[in-house]
Amino acid sequence: MPTSTAVLERRLFGPGPSNPYPEATAALSLPLLGHLDPAFLAIMDETCAMLRTVWGTDNARTLPLSATGSGGMEAAFVNTVGPGDVAVIAVNGLFGQRMCDVADRCGAEVVAVEHEWGQPIDPQRVAEAHPNPTVIAAVHAETSTGVRSDIAALGALKGDALLITDAVTSIGGIELRADSWGVDVGYAGTQKCLGVAPGLAPFTITDAAFERRIPKPQSWYLDLGLLGGYVGGGTSGGGRTYHHTAPVAMVASLHAGLQRVIGEDLENVWARHTEAGQILQDGLHEMGLELFAAEGYRLPELTTVNVPDGVDSAAVRKILLERHNLEIGSGAGAYASSVWRIGLMGHNARPDAALLVLAALQDAIARA
Amino acid sequence: MPTSTAVLERRLFGPGPSNPYPEATAALSLPLLGHLDPAFLAIMDETCAMLRTVWGTDNARTLPLSATGSGGMEAAFVNTVGPGDVAVIAVNGLFGQRMCDVADRCGAEVVAVEHEWGQPIDPQRVAEAHPNPTVIAAVHAETSTGVRSDIAALGALKGDALLITDAVTSIGGIELRADSWGVDVGYAGTQKCLGVAPGLAPFTITDAAFERRIPKPQSWYLDLGLLGGYVGGGTSGGGRTYHHTAPVAMVASLHAGLQRVIGEDLENVWARHTEAGQILQDGLHEMGLELFAAEGYRLPELTTVNVPDGVDSAAVRKILLERHNLEIGSGAGAYASSVWRIGLMGHNARPDAALLVLAALQDAIARA
Repeated sequence: MPTSTAVLERRLFGPGPSNPYPEATAALSLPLLGHLDPAFLAIMDETCAMLRTVWGTDNARTLPLSATGSGGMEAAFVNTVGPGDVAVIAVNGLFGQRMCDVADRCGAEVVAVEHEWGQPIDPQRVAEAHPNPTVIAAVHAETSTGVRSDIAALGALKGDALLITDAVTSIGGIELRADSWGVDVGYAGTQKCLGVAPGLAPFTITDAAFERRIPKPQSWYLDLGLLGGYVGGGTSGGGRTYHHTAPVAMVASLHAGLQRVIGEDLENVWARHTEAGQILQDGLHEMGLELFAAEGYRLPELTTVNVPDGVDSAAVRKILLERHNLEIGSGAGAYASSVWRIGLMGHNARPDAALLVLAALQDAIARA
Repeated sequence: MPTSTAVLERRLFGPGPSNPYPEATAALSLPLLGHLDPAFLAIMDETCAMLRTVWGTDNARTLPLSATGSGGMEAAFVNTVGPGDVAVIAVNGLFGQRMCDVADRCGAEVVAVEHEWGQPIDPQRVAEAHPNPTVIAAVHAETSTGVRSDIAALGALKGDALLITDAVTSIGGIELRADSWGVDVGYAGTQKCLGVAPGLAPFTITDAAFERRIPKPQSWYLDLGLLGGYVGGGTSGGGRTYHHTAPVAMVASLHAGLQRVIGEDLENVWARHTEAGQILQDGLHEMGLELFAAEGYRLPELTTVNVPDGVDSAAVRKILLERHNLEIGSGAGAYASSVWRIGLMGHNARPDAALLVLAALQDAIARA
């Protein structure tokens, strides 16, 4: 049978997971509470309240789904589109593509609006892709390319469609204002700028979108109509009902991470991400490296950089991991070996982390 | 904004979650690894190997799904039944009912074979319910009633149907032999007898069932065809592919919990559950209480007991929680206020825990 090895302490500077806030890690190993214990229900309520803050929403139905971010994506679509519905999806990277696959499995007619990878979405073109879509969907911060798109502009053009937004890599890292931008349905992840381990999908949906939902979605597990009672009176109007056993340790950890973020003040956290990303991107320029994402649309929390000609991408990452205990990401899709993805998210959005990854990358390139 | 309160240390003697093994709790707060880190992939491989042991299977496709047990249930059905397929489902409690709902959402024709709650399923009646079902499904250990059913007998009668088995409350607690019993698809949870926090669904599927799967299931998140690469060469024949970000902390915790179980030897763990349950059930008899589940089919890990006439079920549970920091469960469904559910699972399957819950229950009944 397998045996444990020495504990590895990695610096996680890839596209996620990132190193969690220490408070979030500590909360994971607190004594476990029952999922219906009043003490846990209070933690769940507080978690939902703090999620509203990081989403920039007043939506009553804001909760951590018991799945990773991709499960959140599935929840967004199974609850809003069925056979015959039209889903217009902006595609400028891997996660836009994934949305198309998920919506297609719901039976929706998918209208994919393709963009060059590395570029932001064009809200006008997306909004004009179909005369009356049921939903319009876009990724706020494309994890595959390091690009930020203008969700507010898309919200202004959405018409009667519901706007679905992927905020997996933006939540807790850059400005996100679901309500004022017109986001109807949003999903995110915990393991990036929120500074918590992966395993939950922060989710939000407006009352209006909830009223227009698919009455009996093809997914029982992600059925928002059933999940209302799970998170309490605030979302269902009634008492708690048993749906599934909440992942209590993960929720306690998210609670602690959110307390950290909100204690620092969300706008200060955004500023910290901006500063760290700027130090990193300036340093990469100084090293003579080229950034991949279009200028003006670069995420501070996730920087994409072209692998220099003649450099073996995988060899550099291996040196970083084995010599420096430091992880960066490869590129996604067609850019697997030609792009690196460097994340400075959550607890790692700090000047010292930016300097460390720059120094280590320089060392690894020289050795590769 | 919310503030933390004192740390509560509950004894979790309900139907789950149970108090995890200390090793499983400690592993949650180890430094986080990246989900593609070779060190994490080794942990995932070892976890899958140890899951094979607790499932009693050689199935290559044995893995922890990134969802709770109910997500595992959904994975079982979305990958095996679609419109026009017939699902025969044995119903002797809440989780059999849930299976019907899930299968119905897959478009299957559901043939529910109803049994009295508290009784085991009748394999003969289930097998004869339809001439050629696509799947036959049953719950091994009904969490809602505390009843064990004979899955081996059903396996012997399944014919050409695939046998789906819910082992959420049996895995790691009582005898479970997926391969020799003819289980084709099985799902479970981590938070009961495996002694780990909730959040993952141990899953297994035979090669033959995998070959007969729905090619493009309605769920992207739970598509076993895509998940093959996620857990490595053992299940896909190829290398690792990115599907979703694994909940790395939870997987590390499951790994540690499984090491504990297998280090003790699985049969010894079963014997420990048997002994603790017997002490509890004998003690309840001595207190003059009646057990709910049919004699001969009672789970040692989850005991159901009728609330005595004139006793306020909720008041007793409140005293247990507030005076003794000890949780037991209410009944499920129609038995919410007339039955208690008392779990001695995983780390709590010990004589001292049995004595504690007996003494505390006697005290609480006297005070209620």
